[in-house]
Amino acid sequence: MYRIILVVTTAILASPVAGVLVPPEEGMFPVNEIVGLNLAEKGLEISPLEIFNPNPGEPCLVDGICRVNGCTGSFVSPDGLIITNHHCAYRAIQTASTASNDLLANGFVAANRNSEIPAPGYEVRITETYRDVSTEVLSAVTGEMDFVQRTRAIEKRQKEIEKQAEADQPGIRAEVAEMFAGKTYVLFQYTFIKDVRLVFAPPSSVGNFGGEVDNWEWPRHTGDFTFMRAYVAPDGKPATFADNNIPYHPRRHIQVAAAGVAEGDFVFLLGYPGRTARHKTTAFLRYEQNVRLPFIVELYQWQIGVLEAAGNDDRDVALKHSSRIKSLANVEKRSRGQLQGLRRSDIVAAREASENGLQEFIESDTDRKVQYATIIDDIASVYHEMAEAADHEMNLESLKSVSRAMATAFAIVDAAHERQKEDLDREPPWMERNLDQTRQQLSLAVRDWHAATDKVLLDGMRERLAATKTARELPALQPLLHDKSNRYGDEALSNTPLGDPDRVSAWLDLTPNELSDVEDPFIGLMLDLYPEYLRLRELGKQRDGRLDRLYGSLIDVKQDYLQTDFVPDANSTLRMTYGYVESYSPEDAVLKTPVTTLHGVIEKTTGEEPFATPARIRELYDAGAGEVPVNILYSTDTTGGNSGSPILNAKGQLVGVNFDRTFEATINDFAWNHNYSRSIGVDVRYALWITGEVYGATCLLDEMGIVRK
Amino acid sequence: MYRIILVVTTAILASPVAGVLVPPEEGMFPVNEIVGLNLAEKGLEISPLEIFNPNPGEPCLVDGICRVNGCTGSFVSPDGLIITNHHCAYRAIQTASTASNDLLANGFVAANRNSEIPAPGYEVRITETYRDVSTEVLSAVTGEMDFVQRTRAIEKRQKEIEKQAEADQPGIRAEVAEMFAGKTYVLFQYTFIKDVRLVFAPPSSVGNFGGEVDNWEWPRHTGDFTFMRAYVAPDGKPATFADNNIPYHPRRHIQVAAAGVAEGDFVFLLGYPGRTARHKTTAFLRYEQNVRLPFIVELYQWQIGVLEAAGNDDRDVALKHSSRIKSLANVEKRSRGQLQGLRRSDIVAAREASENGLQEFIESDTDRKVQYATIIDDIASVYHEMAEAADHEMNLESLKSVSRAMATAFAIVDAAHERQKEDLDREPPWMERNLDQTRQQLSLAVRDWHAATDKVLLDGMRERLAATKTARELPALQPLLHDKSNRYGDEALSNTPLGDPDRVSAWLDLTPNELSDVEDPFIGLMLDLYPEYLRLRELGKQRDGRLDRLYGSLIDVKQDYLQTDFVPDANSTLRMTYGYVESYSPEDAVLKTPVTTLHGVIEKTTGEEPFATPARIRELYDAGAGEVPVNILYSTDTTGGNSGSPILNAKGQLVGVNFDRTFEATINDFAWNHNYSRSIGVDVRYALWITGEVYGATCLLDEMGIVRK
Repeated sequence: MYRIILVVTTAILASPVAGVLVPPEEGMFPVNEIVGLNLAEKGLEISPLEIFNPNPGEPCLVDGICRVNGCTGSFVSPDGLIITNHHCAYRAIQTASTASNDLLANGFVAANRNSEIPAPGYEVRITETYRDVSTEVLSAVTGEMDFVQRTRAIEKRQKEIEKQAEADQPGIRAEVAEMFAGKTYVLFQYTFIKDVRLVFAPPSSVGNFGGEVDNWEWPRHTGDFTFMRAYVAPDGKPATFADNNIPYHPRRHIQVAAAGVAEGDFVFLLGYPGRTARHKTTAFLRYEQNVRLPFIVELYQWQIGVLEAAGNDDRDVALKHSSRIKSLANVEKRSRGQLQGLRRSDIVAAREASENGLQEFIESDTDRKVQYATIIDDIASVYHEMAEAADHEMNLESLKSVSRAMATAFAIVDAAHERQKEDLDREPPWMERNLDQTRQQLSLAVRDWHAATDKVLLDGMRERLAATKTARELPALQPLLHDKSNRYGDEALSNTPLGDPDRVSAWLDLTPNELSDVEDPFIGLMLDLYPEYLRLRELGKQRDGRLDRLYGSLIDVKQDYLQTDFVPDANSTLRMTYGYVESYSPEDAVLKTPVTTLHGVIEKTTGEEPFATPARIRELYDAGAGEVPVNILYSTDTTGGNSGSPILNAKGQLVGVNFDRTFEATINDFAWNHNYSRSIGVDVRYALWITGEVYGATCLLDEMGIVRK
Repeated sequence: MYRIILVVTTAILASPVAGVLVPPEEGMFPVNEIVGLNLAEKGLEISPLEIFNPNPGEPCLVDGICRVNGCTGSFVSPDGLIITNHHCAYRAIQTASTASNDLLANGFVAANRNSEIPAPGYEVRITETYRDVSTEVLSAVTGEMDFVQRTRAIEKRQKEIEKQAEADQPGIRAEVAEMFAGKTYVLFQYTFIKDVRLVFAPPSSVGNFGGEVDNWEWPRHTGDFTFMRAYVAPDGKPATFADNNIPYHPRRHIQVAAAGVAEGDFVFLLGYPGRTARHKTTAFLRYEQNVRLPFIVELYQWQIGVLEAAGNDDRDVALKHSSRIKSLANVEKRSRGQLQGLRRSDIVAAREASENGLQEFIESDTDRKVQYATIIDDIASVYHEMAEAADHEMNLESLKSVSRAMATAFAIVDAAHERQKEDLDREPPWMERNLDQTRQQLSLAVRDWHAATDKVLLDGMRERLAATKTARELPALQPLLHDKSNRYGDEALSNTPLGDPDRVSAWLDLTPNELSDVEDPFIGLMLDLYPEYLRLRELGKQRDGRLDRLYGSLIDVKQDYLQTDFVPDANSTLRMTYGYVESYSPEDAVLKTPVTTLHGVIEKTTGEEPFATPARIRELYDAGAGEVPVNILYSTDTTGGNSGSPILNAKGQLVGVNFDRTFEATINDFAWNHNYSRSIGVDVRYALWITGEVYGATCLLDEMGIVRK
């Protein structure tokens, strides 16, 4: 496998004298920038080339890191053993569970490799190469294009590059990532493994200890880790599940440091952080604070309530909805944390002050003034427009995400229309290269189908839409809003094939004409609504086009103004962040220290979920295991997608698995601050103790090369 | 004033070789024991004789300490200026407030001495002498007495001693305190000042910042301090309020240390801690945990809800009820803390283990076995009896405390009957020496009368009684339980004179015969119920007699067993406790540090009560006052009654005013523990800053001898 680095992700380099002006602790650095960070001075004891080496002949730690769906994982053995979070493997554990064989409740230990359970819908990517393709992408844009055309042109060129790369190298997955909006694009190429299996999962009472109560909180006592394994065809090539597949052999795996860490230790993380918004303007923060986040919090709280009530008396229904509740609750609480952070901290004021400074800088020079004078206002006007239309747009978008019937109907209608187009003109989910994956995701989503729940959710969305003037007046919505004959009621929901994975799969192949013959009220309704959804999609692309161009210019002038480099916002591509195992003070006279122990697990244990602790652990505690470290806290810069990231020590050995941030650090996505930005991980000593001592899976410890006492 | 010390409060001295076996930090030490504590080794930099000197010719710090109703205060100037808690002066501030002149909301600064506001119902005591009277008290008991007779005999002898002492020295208040139940009694003599005035109070937004949300919590940010002044007649003798009274000159006042304290500093407190139960058995703890505390929590939560609802739309009613809500909420939350402490901590298990050890020790010797074998069980049987009868007794007792009408009616009926007796045979409130005070307290209590509120409270008590089988069947209760003609309803409550202080005062002089002619439904009901209340009172005395004798014996054998001294439980007499300004860890990975600052006040400030902060403070904060220390935390052993206690540094200077404990330390009343027992005080630097800088009362700073910059 070759590896070519032609990337200038921080395309806009400051003059060398300016040096690195961003605080050294902030930043999710693209791995090619590691060499410039002087990590030895910070505490790293290995060469930065050990972390990432552009020479493919020299395996490095990055080769031991993988993306596991939206999370990160680490290869911790030569045989493709992956450690990631319990919550990242949750869907796999849930899928393998039934009321009578409840792996969420009981945990899972594969007796041997043959007993490892396939995890449908799971895929593993290993970053192989990446190169800057900004010029190729932006050459698709011409001066005459309007914003929608501009967005479409960029999207299409990205797809062309991806398609070409995959054609050039069969078996490789290619993706073009936007690093700086409207400015920098990088082509990432991944080994793409589709046979992933569950190897070991602690019970939820360990892996999800504290549940939603403790989520986004420190002190934490959660054993949020799981082992999976990547399999490939006997020839070593990626393949879908097959009995004769063999374990994947990573070029390099990460050594586990059974000795763990101590307060003050240097640590760094590798991973695939999802999204941050550090370079957006005050208008964006205001939109988040006043419009989007409050909407999300209210909508999600309501959905969680409905889903929980549905499962109250029925463990099967509860199991069905558990994964969905978990992700809704996760986003709901994060959004609340961000709202609190935006209200309490001075982030908005600080950003406004820096923008005022920038505006003065712009106006101090005639040429700059001509070029940039209105740029901050122009960006604001996009967010104002979004805020104005928010009720209409967010409620309509929610209709097709909240109700499973409407969500599936939309996918089917969208597939029918998109698949009429040339492959490169389609929305990504319907391109040939993605179709299998989209189909599988839809069929997995339908597994949590429960007609009675969907009825309550659909009724709730109906009320919300009826309360929104423009939606209330939308002709296509009238049948739903005035459903006197109960066309979309209980009976319809019980009878619609939209809850049946096989029927859904079959309907994904229909053409628009065939679809209009289908006698399903939800498909019918969605066919009527589809033009409105297309209008919203178009509007989105137009705004993206405006914002891309505006933010591209903003970065240019800001660079002139600050004379500094910027680290690109997170975008699900491979990054490195570093920090220290350290405490923080969330409020006056409170210090939260960075290592929790089994004592704390037992203190919190009530015997009731989410604070139930398995009897075996309580016994070992009574026998003196109280000092076993459980979770650790450290000052790295992380976001969603860093779930499962290895916490590596100064020698590059794995000392823990990242799984969360503190409540105060939810605001990280908008601004990082050493005072409150802390990430939370499982101490590897806990993971090893749970795996070996508590559940007896000592073969895994042996496989990881852990010397047992 | 002479001062004779003939006291052996720890009457049961261990052999000298055993030494002081109690942990040095635990203990509310009677002041005559201070010399034996080796405080120099702990950090005290003055002679223990500076704290308490048995020679009356040599004024000591104890002369600068006073009891302010149920609280403690310190004289901080030669002119009788007292610093105590805002919550201790709350009733005085409330009494002086109206909706149009709301001193609770606005605070109060006396422009000069003439503007200081009398605080009716307030009294100040200064401990003058005390001596052991155990022999005199116990000589009243003879072998033939049953338990009720025994209790009555002890009570009567105490009253005789008090009466004699007061006759011997007019102007002195005498009180016999039980130190060890059934064993040790000490006569305390007090100077008793009845003219107390309000000098300075911060607004509740400072003095009660955080309100019930922060009560019993750390970190804390409350300016819970107030200045009052003691006045005496021109001849220096105690007198009731008169215009020509002059400030009291204490023999010695406490010097305020404007420099404050730092983490790790040695501190000690002097004060009048109310009640602890460190020497009671497991059966008592179980009774508290399973019976009394849950009852209190439920009953008080309900009452608080009723009182709050009543004041929701009417600030006058809210003001009327505010003091009562505050005390109910205080006890409710403390009781919850104690319940949590009893459930979570190992106090019950530890006490049970030590009792098992004691039982073995008893049974290991034939003589001891004969004398003590059943003692622990006998004590338990008293608590079992109380638990059995709890529903009946606690609901009936609550009827006459929850409903103001019933409470006042009971007092009137009780007064009529008791006052028929010889003075020494009366219940203490109705003895001639206490009558004025009782009368004033009743008339103050009636000030919060609000018929509509009492209706809801009476209805609630009626429901509770109806749900209790034995109460339901009590003949005297039938008229209340089956009140078809609404004899005790809205109209009756609006018309009863029981809400009128003057009428109440007049009725307190009636005889039983005269009372039976009074046409008031509540008096009538209470006359019928009175025999049942007498029966419960008798039962109480009988149980007290049993427990006194049993606990007296228990202390004897425990002393043999442990070979150690005991510090008597708190009993509202003068005590000293010491410790350090220090942090604590309430849970795994959380450290609470011991000094809060104005930063924290501003962080908590929402603008809404109880987190509203006066504009002037916010301005000073913006001008850079963030580092002003606000509250401090220290490891002394305190309980209710220590409110207002001076926090004294190693030199005996005042560095703060004690006002609370942490939530974990509510369990202190049952067992002290260095891990979690922490007291909370106002840092004197905050008190001085609020007084001088914020409210401009610099004359008070001058009076205290503070050198201003």
